[in-house]
Amino acid sequence: MTQNLPALVTLLTVLLQFGTMWVVGHARGKYRIQAPAISGHPVFERAYRVQMNTLENTVMFLPTLWLAAHYGYVFWAGVAGLVWVLGRVWYAIAYLGDAGKRGGGYMVGMVGWAATLVMAALGLGRALLAG
Amino acid sequence: MTQNLPALVTLLTVLLQFGTMWVVGHARGKYRIQAPAISGHPVFERAYRVQMNTLENTVMFLPTLWLAAHYGYVFWAGVAGLVWVLGRVWYAIAYLGDAGKRGGGYMVGMVGWAATLVMAALGLGRALLAG
Amino acid sequence: MTQNLPALVTLLTVLLQFGTMWVVGHARGKYRIQAPAISGHPVFERAYRVQMNTLENTVMFLPTLWLAAHYGYVFWAGVAGLVWVLGRVWYAIAYLGDAGKRGGGYMVGMVGWAATLVMAALGLGRALLAG
Repeated sequence: MTQNLPALVTLLTVLLQFGTMWVVGHARGKYRIQAPAISGHPVFERAYRVQMNTLENTVMFLPTLWLAAHYGYVFWAGVAGLVWVLGRVWYAIAYLGDAGKRGGGYMVGMVGWAATLVMAALGLGRALLAG
Repeated sequence: MTQNLPALVTLLTVLLQFGTMWVVGHARGKYRIQAPAISGHPVFERAYRVQMNTLENTVMFLPTLWLAAHYGYVFWAGVAGLVWVLGRVWYAIAYLGDAGKRGGGYMVGMVGWAATLVMAALGLGRALLAG
Repeated sequence: MTQNLPALVTLLTVLLQFGTMWVVGHARGKYRIQAPAISGHPVFERAYRVQMNTLENTVMFLPTLWLAAHYGYVFWAGVAGLVWVLGRVWYAIAYLGDAGKRGGGYMVGMVGWAATLVMAALGLGRALLAG
């Protein structure tokens, strides 16, 4: 289980990406936003920002998740990763309803990410000191 | 050959990214869209959407490609990855000419991606069951 | 040290991402750009483009960095990666001040990236030839 936790988190992250992309496609159809436009209805614009912000955060998260796992923190990186996923799901759902409510999930995601960052930095620091 | 197929697919993916970025830069110059603007001419806007959509899909694809390879489906993940690359190249070329023609390549790309996702999920599921 | 250089570069890349995201959030607050809007003030728009361009380039860079390292160019991939990071930091700082000054850092980043790309392609080519 433990050994596969970062892979599970990675798969959940990909499914989250897919979900946020699907919501954008759905809103594009429903509100008749013709591609390549990325504005035209508040619901579409919130969906698009959720997708982009999820993308931005994923590109910061997957590298630190796997660096932390690489340097030996497999279990705790996985746990922090699950926190990140939960925070990002909360963020996405809340933001889709009301941009003003995106803060809670964002902070939880940031805490999960920061934990993987600290583990990655600690592991790297130790490896550099060990020569 | 087989062993290096996911790496080949990854390299092709990076070159595709570079290609979509290059088209945006070219359109920015040709239609005199001053940075940081991301609108102003339909050709530029299509090029920009192609780049962004390629980026979004790459961030969903590379993790499932490598998870599938990690769990032993090296050859089939590579084959699915080649399908993904071909679909995304078709998508990019078709979309640049006419946004309405982006569907075919998109679907082919999705099929390739879905195959890597299924392999990654199968491999992870087996590893979790094996304890 | 050498063995951990790609990891160090990856961590710096993540911190750069975080920095560009932080600048966008700060500009969003300072110029009162209500989410989900991504335009409304030139400083915000430059910050947003810096973040997005950094994201786009990171997704092209991390795969070639690690492919190059995987195929044995650990040290030189790390050195090229440091050049990339320096170029991208220069790009971000210059662009935030004046979009017209983004060229120098961009080119340095491209040189670093191109070096990792060449190493990745060379390593892959050799591996394919070796069967």
